[in-house]
Amino acid sequence: VPVDVHTRLLDHNDHQAAHLREHFARHGVTAINLMGSPGAGKTALLEATARRLDERLAAVSGDLATDRDAERLRAAGIPSWAITTGSACHLDADMVHDALHGALGEAVRGAAFFFIENVGNLVCPAIYDLGQRANVVAVSVTEGDDKPLKYPVIFARADLVLLTKTDLVPHLPGWSTERFRDALGHVMPEPRLIEVSALTGAGIDGWVEALRGWRGAA
Amino acid sequence: VPVDVHTRLLDHNDHQAAHLREHFARHGVTAINLMGSPGAGKTALLEATARRLDERLAAVSGDLATDRDAERLRAAGIPSWAITTGSACHLDADMVHDALHGALGEAVRGAAFFFIENVGNLVCPAIYDLGQRANVVAVSVTEGDDKPLKYPVIFARADLVLLTKTDLVPHLPGWSTERFRDALGHVMPEPRLIEVSALTGAGIDGWVEALRGWRGAA
Repeated sequence: VPVDVHTRLLDHNDHQAAHLREHFARHGVTAINLMGSPGAGKTALLEATARRLDERLAAVSGDLATDRDAERLRAAGIPSWAITTGSACHLDADMVHDALHGALGEAVRGAAFFFIENVGNLVCPAIYDLGQRANVVAVSVTEGDDKPLKYPVIFARADLVLLTKTDLVPHLPGWSTERFRDALGHVMPEPRLIEVSALTGAGIDGWVEALRGWRGAA
Repeated sequence: VPVDVHTRLLDHNDHQAAHLREHFARHGVTAINLMGSPGAGKTALLEATARRLDERLAAVSGDLATDRDAERLRAAGIPSWAITTGSACHLDADMVHDALHGALGEAVRGAAFFFIENVGNLVCPAIYDLGQRANVVAVSVTEGDDKPLKYPVIFARADLVLLTKTDLVPHLPGWSTERFRDALGHVMPEPRLIEVSALTGAGIDGWVEALRGWRGAA
């Protein structure tokens, strides 16, 4: 894409994201941009979060097609809306803004936390501001401990990395959490990592604490 | 991205891909575009392939940063070159063409199979022709059995889907190979699926047979 077109798109996105950020602040909503590869366990994490948090929640789920994730979140008690992007590999601030003008808007205005579950992708979502309080990247242990080195852009902008599916570690001969932590130290300015398993519930308390910290400091 | 800019980019790519395709045909090289999420096991699959195939091989590995995958492939005996894309979420025909003008060109001209290991991504690589004989999508069982429904574009253009890391199935309570197969049937015009484990070697024979089939029919 020509550089000037790209710059114009990002400028527009930043403007719209600033508008979203004001909207969230005005209504006391803490917005979280949750990113990660396809199958990193983003939806399962939010399901586990809903089981642990008493506060009111709301969510949008980005996918190329289907509203399966939003359905799963609704079944977990989170008012949720699907954003289907067709062929776009990330959400942008316009898409989130449009969703808020729909039926979801009221749920979000009354929520403590608004989760923006981005399109499954470790590349494209990184540079699009969505007005979030925090950028969170979920990476599963099955993806390999070298991922921070190979996809540095998204980790460089993360406030927190969630290492997911830790229950599978015993079955992954090639995995080293130490190597993953080391790789993260090379690309993330202030490395912050929480290890979780949505299946066993391990680590979910630490994640909920991080969420409350962002809310307190908002 | 404005539609006209996008169309122009794809037109240019198709032109360059046609040029690559002629080049591969002239030298009797069967080119395979291997796509999949980060951590789908693309590199491990090629390592296992090198252990099973006697023919001469060559490869390029696309990543945002680092040449780790190309290093792994060289260690497995495959002459390989890294293409680092910076922030681009896929390879395009220009990048492959440039790599062939470098030191890799000679290895590719003497190879039976040329593997193009794309950037880890289940969205962007789908629509960029690289002059390949076949599009192969690797999906690991840890990604979840709904992935074909959620990322239909890349599956719709695949000649073959490799279901990887099948050794982990016993540890994934939510996984159903039947559901995955069913989902694939909804988005892939002629569903073709091979289940493999690079760790145990299961299914690698079937994959090698598919490779030889494309070579025979070239």
